[in-house]
Amino acid sequence: MSALPTIFAAESQPDLPLHEQLVRTLRRAILAGHLPFNSRLPASRVLALDLGVSRSTVELAFSRLEAEGYVRRQVGVGSFVAIAARANKPVVRKTAAGLSQRGQMMVEAGACRDTKLPSFAFTAGQPDTTAFPRELWGKLTQQRWKKDGQTLMRYGDPQGLPELREAIAAYLAQSRGVACDAAQILVLTSSQQALQLIAQLLIDPDDTVWLEEPGYLGARNAMLSAGAKIIPVPVDHDGLNTDISSTLSPPKLIYSTPSHQYPLGITMSLPRRITLLAQAAQHNAWIIEDDYDSEFSYDQRPLPALQGLDQAGRVIYVGTFSKVLFPGLRIAYMVLPPDLMPAFTNARSAFDGHTPQLSQVVTADFMAQGHFAAHIRQMRLLYRSRRDLLVSCLQPLASQIQPININGGLQFAVEVTAGKESAWTAAGIAQGLALRPLSQFYLGAAKKEGWLLGYASLNNIQISSAVNTLTDLILKE
Amino acid sequence: MSALPTIFAAESQPDLPLHEQLVRTLRRAILAGHLPFNSRLPASRVLALDLGVSRSTVELAFSRLEAEGYVRRQVGVGSFVAIAARANKPVVRKTAAGLSQRGQMMVEAGACRDTKLPSFAFTAGQPDTTAFPRELWGKLTQQRWKKDGQTLMRYGDPQGLPELREAIAAYLAQSRGVACDAAQILVLTSSQQALQLIAQLLIDPDDTVWLEEPGYLGARNAMLSAGAKIIPVPVDHDGLNTDISSTLSPPKLIYSTPSHQYPLGITMSLPRRITLLAQAAQHNAWIIEDDYDSEFSYDQRPLPALQGLDQAGRVIYVGTFSKVLFPGLRIAYMVLPPDLMPAFTNARSAFDGHTPQLSQVVTADFMAQGHFAAHIRQMRLLYRSRRDLLVSCLQPLASQIQPININGGLQFAVEVTAGKESAWTAAGIAQGLALRPLSQFYLGAAKKEGWLLGYASLNNIQISSAVNTLTDLILKE
Repeated sequence: MSALPTIFAAESQPDLPLHEQLVRTLRRAILAGHLPFNSRLPASRVLALDLGVSRSTVELAFSRLEAEGYVRRQVGVGSFVAIAARANKPVVRKTAAGLSQRGQMMVEAGACRDTKLPSFAFTAGQPDTTAFPRELWGKLTQQRWKKDGQTLMRYGDPQGLPELREAIAAYLAQSRGVACDAAQILVLTSSQQALQLIAQLLIDPDDTVWLEEPGYLGARNAMLSAGAKIIPVPVDHDGLNTDISSTLSPPKLIYSTPSHQYPLGITMSLPRRITLLAQAAQHNAWIIEDDYDSEFSYDQRPLPALQGLDQAGRVIYVGTFSKVLFPGLRIAYMVLPPDLMPAFTNARSAFDGHTPQLSQVVTADFMAQGHFAAHIRQMRLLYRSRRDLLVSCLQPLASQIQPININGGLQFAVEVTAGKESAWTAAGIAQGLALRPLSQFYLGAAKKEGWLLGYASLNNIQISSAVNTLTDLILKE
Repeated sequence: MSALPTIFAAESQPDLPLHEQLVRTLRRAILAGHLPFNSRLPASRVLALDLGVSRSTVELAFSRLEAEGYVRRQVGVGSFVAIAARANKPVVRKTAAGLSQRGQMMVEAGACRDTKLPSFAFTAGQPDTTAFPRELWGKLTQQRWKKDGQTLMRYGDPQGLPELREAIAAYLAQSRGVACDAAQILVLTSSQQALQLIAQLLIDPDDTVWLEEPGYLGARNAMLSAGAKIIPVPVDHDGLNTDISSTLSPPKLIYSTPSHQYPLGITMSLPRRITLLAQAAQHNAWIIEDDYDSEFSYDQRPLPALQGLDQAGRVIYVGTFSKVLFPGLRIAYMVLPPDLMPAFTNARSAFDGHTPQLSQVVTADFMAQGHFAAHIRQMRLLYRSRRDLLVSCLQPLASQIQPININGGLQFAVEVTAGKESAWTAAGIAQGLALRPLSQFYLGAAKKEGWLLGYASLNNIQISSAVNTLTDLILKE
């Protein structure tokens, strides 16, 4: 016991009440085996003296330890250690050893957002949050919280709030030519969650999945984590190349971004869309249509969604509010063939329950009151002007940097002088530019060298200064 | 072409501009093959007359269709259908056919929340949202939205907001004896998401998982969807029975609710905890400690968390704000051994990105300002009084209904007269009582008949009237 006072003093945690400190010291001593099973604890009076605390403090600690089962007290006899510590000595364990094969695949697939990049100039996929009607959003939120907070605080429908599903269905039918009703909408937290659900529910290990090459890392990641065999299908100026794909081994699922190919920005041509649907029919395969930012089409109306052309119910349409509203909202959705809805709703509830009801109802209000359409119109003008500025700022570098498919979105891809991508990328990142090399988006050998340049969240000064930085480091070479 | 006017009239959508209606009619006609490849469209003048619309309307429609690739126009020659519709005839597909085996398992495992039950009296796991300081929460939200909305609208750290992780780590160390720092906290949307992440990252198909019998459906569901081989380990009055488990085939993972066994409410004894840790060490297995509602321990302080006893870093602690704050918040967390954090953060970002930053920072404020501790204290008193009332109301039925382990939580389990569970459950549900039969929680043959009775969200009148309903239907028998 002589050690106890020392330990007690050494471990003293002034922020805790004395008896609590004593309880913890004794617990540790018992568990560490310093106080062996059945050994007698000193009388509370004695220990109090040893430790220089009041007897009642010791009594309090002893009864806590008795309640917890560490100590057995016999009136008139004394207090005894009631448990035998089985010291399980720390095992050094590599995470790898502990991870499942699926877990390993996910680690190797890497994160789907590159967190290492400085989140400043040229970051892709970033809307301009400063241009968002934040005050209005705050007011709508307060109103609903006051009015319906009671219900909104409870558990909600895993499929999503009916008001929001109605609003989404109406918007998609009107603006995107999607054939659906509210019953086909599943509200989620992100398109990434949509891809995970699809991978888990529709893909078995070694099922073949066609991905666009180059393509979206998040889709690759989700499919890999489901154990899919991935076949990259090259894209050309008409989008996913269905002539080549006809020669590939039959897919269970095809991932596509027909409106605005990620990362190259190509719009898939109508004949290609029709062929893709035919190939899916032939192989009885599913098609994911990831329509992540078609709202921002600057030079012409976007083609209606592939889903609208689908007469066989094989297209699963995925949309998100991260680009048209703001990423922190964490609301996205998918449009499902009706017979898939029960399984997906069930799985969503098994994944993470449901999306917070408050943000859902506020989004529904924002749409129903016309703010949504207005915001999209305004952002389309704003982002287009920024695109135009970036394009013209890049003019002087025309011999080193060529923009491709600048027709829409929050970013566009550029090609750079062959052999320069890695060197210029490193130099740019060192200068605080979020340069995302195109080579990252290829599963096979990269066919293009260049970057994905985000401009939507940059004001004019930031755009020109970013291009100046870029110019300096390229000409310095 | 003669059909066009009829189709056009039939499909008229008054809410759309005329040219938009015409575009859609022609699109459908072309895709359906009514207007074959290379067939000539009538001159806009003629069609305008046929349809009774202005010529400019037809011109507008034609140029849209040209832009979209449906129509090819040759000056002085005319307009022609530019694509060959390959009618892919609808395929009748059963969902089952489309689902992966994993998807099938998830469907068969069923949803983890029983949505069919009326969400009125006796619903389990429901905190009292009417007693929550809603106005204060609304104020904190507004303040942060005004002050930091700019940043909160952006993408956030998949591991969670540092302020919140700090607050959670401090709370767990103080109140639950969890040994951790903020770097070990992963912020999630729900404990269900924690279970899914663990299953995906640590379990491979046919890995053995020990589940408590009876036990939590959500855990079973997550493990099944990862393809785990599940072994039910019976619980007795000391919790998960480690004497029996020592004879079972070695687990890769053990799911446990030591503080308040779900659904029976048992507190796992200290010797059992130590044996469980020893068995996990012996098998090099992980342990999940699901600590879903230990904050509500009414008759004595809860035992410190199992995680605090773990010296080998095998316990993954899971906690949630759904019970102590409100379910609609959608924030939960896990405490990970440090070497697992990179893989789990990576996987979380591949699952669904991150939890909304606004609700995270408000929760952090609520905790840092002391409202959290105060709210728990108040709810503990409120819920305890409701538990006492329910127990006393059930007294007269003592020969048919015996409460077991009423020491804490938002609900307690009761045993009912043998052979009566299903009949009384049906009768009760017909009367609007959310009676959750204990048999639902068993993987094997049910050892107990009875219900899980939620009381925390019911006021005194609701409790007594619910018991009256119950009494009537039992005595009517």
